[in-house]
Amino acid sequence: MATLILVRHGQSEWNLANRFTGWWDVDLTDKGVDEARAAGRLLKDKGVLPDCAFTSLQTRAIRTLDLALEECGRLWVPVTKDWHLNERHYGGLTGLNKQETRDRHGDEQVHIWRRSFDTPPPPMEPGSEYDPGADPRYEGIDVPYTESLKLTIERVLPYWEEHILPLLTGDRTIIISAHGNSLRALVKHLSGISDDEITGLEIPTGRPIIYPFENGAVTAERRYLDET
Amino acid sequence: MATLILVRHGQSEWNLANRFTGWWDVDLTDKGVDEARAAGRLLKDKGVLPDCAFTSLQTRAIRTLDLALEECGRLWVPVTKDWHLNERHYGGLTGLNKQETRDRHGDEQVHIWRRSFDTPPPPMEPGSEYDPGADPRYEGIDVPYTESLKLTIERVLPYWEEHILPLLTGDRTIIISAHGNSLRALVKHLSGISDDEITGLEIPTGRPIIYPFENGAVTAERRYLDET
Repeated sequence: MATLILVRHGQSEWNLANRFTGWWDVDLTDKGVDEARAAGRLLKDKGVLPDCAFTSLQTRAIRTLDLALEECGRLWVPVTKDWHLNERHYGGLTGLNKQETRDRHGDEQVHIWRRSFDTPPPPMEPGSEYDPGADPRYEGIDVPYTESLKLTIERVLPYWEEHILPLLTGDRTIIISAHGNSLRALVKHLSGISDDEITGLEIPTGRPIIYPFENGAVTAERRYLDET
Repeated sequence: MATLILVRHGQSEWNLANRFTGWWDVDLTDKGVDEARAAGRLLKDKGVLPDCAFTSLQTRAIRTLDLALEECGRLWVPVTKDWHLNERHYGGLTGLNKQETRDRHGDEQVHIWRRSFDTPPPPMEPGSEYDPGADPRYEGIDVPYTESLKLTIERVLPYWEEHILPLLTGDRTIIISAHGNSLRALVKHLSGISDDEITGLEIPTGRPIIYPFENGAVTAERRYLDET
């Protein structure tokens, strides 16, 4: 049996500051570092040891992965970093404080942007200080201006199908360290969750989620590793 | 012009304890962590920013790389980890305190094992507690029982030629985080150092060495980045 581990990055500086982050590259807080290390210790304690890893191009997910791998003695496994696993791009909301955004646009509008399946926020304005377009990590990549959850899913799933799923053979254990919405994309697909339900599903930070695989298919519903 | 950066891992627990380490997997000391971070800050200050990285399968080199990349804002670059960049395998000396070894075998013999170009130390004994053969990171790899510097070079250089050199094109900047002897192998080749001289060349920990490249060839002698 193969095993897929999903882990959402620990608390970031902008989780704490309650700002829309998306593709902006913020670091973990001290609490986020602790969460990542705790996830790694749990993997070690449960003997669920990755032999291969994937993450996004964003510091908070990469550091979460590195800290978890360090704690479980698996720093040496191959790691692939790819923008397809990045957080949903929050467009023009990037950098804004969530409360200020609600004050300006109203609770209902912000709720729609955050929780609608297919309504993207307004696009990133050209020249915005939060535009990641000029970041060298995205050289050669057609950086989006904004994304709905639906658009996020449409880039996460093809990457999953082509690059990760084919490796889940034999007794391999693969870890993906990523973000609230790129992981929603995977959980929606793997657990068969509807468009309406997925937008309300919270993926907790630093809590490894486990899916067993056999012959390229999920064989049981997801579980939290700390509950087993 | 392309740039190659070589960096030897920061101080390890067994550097500090003065034990032969080789393929045994020890971690960095706090001082080693500081050295790695300082190397990363230097890269940032000098604007010598890696866009691609290579390291061994050993924790002390991987952590040195990760800490340096974190400090210079380049955690997102692709990293390849390969056993060909591992430290020289010290055979039966692995785990021994260097002073005790001298007391037992005599200064001259230990000096020969450490500094001869082509005399390997006695092989690792089967069942030794320091035998990395059972470590899952070396699954499928024909782990050596002992290595001279010559044998180390014979596995480092083909890897360099096949996997790293072809990437040193255009204005790319590649960093290799590795070990005293795997880096000696590269410096010997790139700087044309004789068999006799190379065994006495000390590669300092945490000090980035720079080689400029053009059309696949070194265009100037190596320099320490902190001296420029």
